[in-house]
Amino acid sequence: MSRGSKTPVLIVGSMAFDSIKTPTESVEMALGGSATFGAIAASYFASPRVVGIVGDDFTDEHLAAFTNRGIDTTGIDRVSGKTFHWKGSYHANMQDRDTLDTQLNVFETFDPKLPGSYRDSKFVFLGNIAPRIQMKVLDQVEAPTFVGLDTMNFWISSALGDLKAVLRRIDLLFINDEEAFELSNERQVIVAGETILKMGPKYVVIKRGEFGSLLFGKDICFFVPAVLLPRVVDPTGAGDAFAGGFVGSVARVGEVSRSALAEGMLYGTVLASFAVGQFSVDGVLELERATIDLRREFIESMTNYS
Amino acid sequence: MSRGSKTPVLIVGSMAFDSIKTPTESVEMALGGSATFGAIAASYFASPRVVGIVGDDFTDEHLAAFTNRGIDTTGIDRVSGKTFHWKGSYHANMQDRDTLDTQLNVFETFDPKLPGSYRDSKFVFLGNIAPRIQMKVLDQVEAPTFVGLDTMNFWISSALGDLKAVLRRIDLLFINDEEAFELSNERQVIVAGETILKMGPKYVVIKRGEFGSLLFGKDICFFVPAVLLPRVVDPTGAGDAFAGGFVGSVARVGEVSRSALAEGMLYGTVLASFAVGQFSVDGVLELERATIDLRREFIESMTNYS
Repeated sequence: MSRGSKTPVLIVGSMAFDSIKTPTESVEMALGGSATFGAIAASYFASPRVVGIVGDDFTDEHLAAFTNRGIDTTGIDRVSGKTFHWKGSYHANMQDRDTLDTQLNVFETFDPKLPGSYRDSKFVFLGNIAPRIQMKVLDQVEAPTFVGLDTMNFWISSALGDLKAVLRRIDLLFINDEEAFELSNERQVIVAGETILKMGPKYVVIKRGEFGSLLFGKDICFFVPAVLLPRVVDPTGAGDAFAGGFVGSVARVGEVSRSALAEGMLYGTVLASFAVGQFSVDGVLELERATIDLRREFIESMTNYS
Repeated sequence: MSRGSKTPVLIVGSMAFDSIKTPTESVEMALGGSATFGAIAASYFASPRVVGIVGDDFTDEHLAAFTNRGIDTTGIDRVSGKTFHWKGSYHANMQDRDTLDTQLNVFETFDPKLPGSYRDSKFVFLGNIAPRIQMKVLDQVEAPTFVGLDTMNFWISSALGDLKAVLRRIDLLFINDEEAFELSNERQVIVAGETILKMGPKYVVIKRGEFGSLLFGKDICFFVPAVLLPRVVDPTGAGDAFAGGFVGSVARVGEVSRSALAEGMLYGTVLASFAVGQFSVDGVLELERATIDLRREFIESMTNYS
């Protein structure tokens, strides 16, 4: 995982300040957003190029979280105004949550234009933003090898047409199980997965939180259990860390083989497990390769039946 | 899996007639009970010896479900009166259920005395019955090698002292996740598992339905995903089929090694997946070895990341 020779991976999504309350703790205005978690997670495997928008309250210190990890921030637009702010509160199960406040601020004007240096990106992660904007980004990438996309229930219910259009152009959809059930109108996960594959993507990863995640494709089916943690501090960003780790790991392999997808699942799971261990991006900012691989090996040992 | 040389496995539990309603189907007075599902599942790997009690409404045809599978029924007590009857209704999620009626009938007088020919059993499955009776059975086994025990929330709340006493004498506890949380007073599955191990058993298997199952022990941790089914017909007995398949498989190996426990998890998962595919024991009555092993191989392929 030396930095010099890593493959570029384009990452687009939200950049935010999150105020989060859990049953036992809270944090105010902490660095968050799908592009933030995705890029930091991907940086352990590839060279992320980020596209996002922030306000003038986004300081150089915030930016250092990216640059310290070797992330290309050319595509981060810093404009006058306030950065996107989300405020939420988690239930006792640390899974269900209530949104207390959403201030889009400068994010409302997000109209990403890719820097010229980004357009040759072969590996792409389109984080959870409006499908119309995800499509607009994709239009600016010359010849991608692998495009992963994340979405959420809000877009399934409010922008299904746009979502279906972009699904036809991507390689892999990241989605959680409830969203997969909503998108497919099915309740059994294997049927939901197969239904979603018919919508266009070659692969779908269905994330089930502490119950692990599944990858479905034509003639391919992987399951990876979640890392069993004695305590979850903050689940925010876990899905983005998963996707960033996944796409970064596939970029490192450099091709979309069966083993590259399996590695993506494993490293996605590992990065998500570190993300939930601390508030904000604190859990994924300073990991050692040995720490990452030890957790990967533990996951593999859990399913090594021989 | 030839029948001649199979290892005996002692199986004790309820024998019942179940009336079950699911959101789409129903069945009346179908063969059920923990000993029934456990013994039939175990019969694919070992030679079950059943201990149970039934009424005179339990016909030779019902008994044939056992004898046709080579199960020793010497320990089934057929007495005057009616067989235990349970009536329940499953919610749309096919997991939560309401008990509509419970008639203990002859089961109320269940006071198992092991036939002399059963007392040398090395492998034992104590199905879900009162912990006091499980203990009484255990007292009659001369020198068991491996004892698995199943229980339920009813005993955790109503007979915790008896349950804790028997937990100190067994090798492995089968329990579902909600019950594990209740028994341990913990909410994170890994902490719950570790807490339960301190209560006595060398191993605990925490079953999570469609999300798979976990085995914890000292220096051992396995996860096996559930078989992904397009449709579940009736979840009744799945846990008993899991446990019967597990203990039967361990008996076949003949020792409690790491690989024997892994095989137990895999075959338990396979038998449970067949059990839920049909009402009553219909899904596990006539399986071929090739069918069982194909499903085992599919589970293994889902977690084969190389």
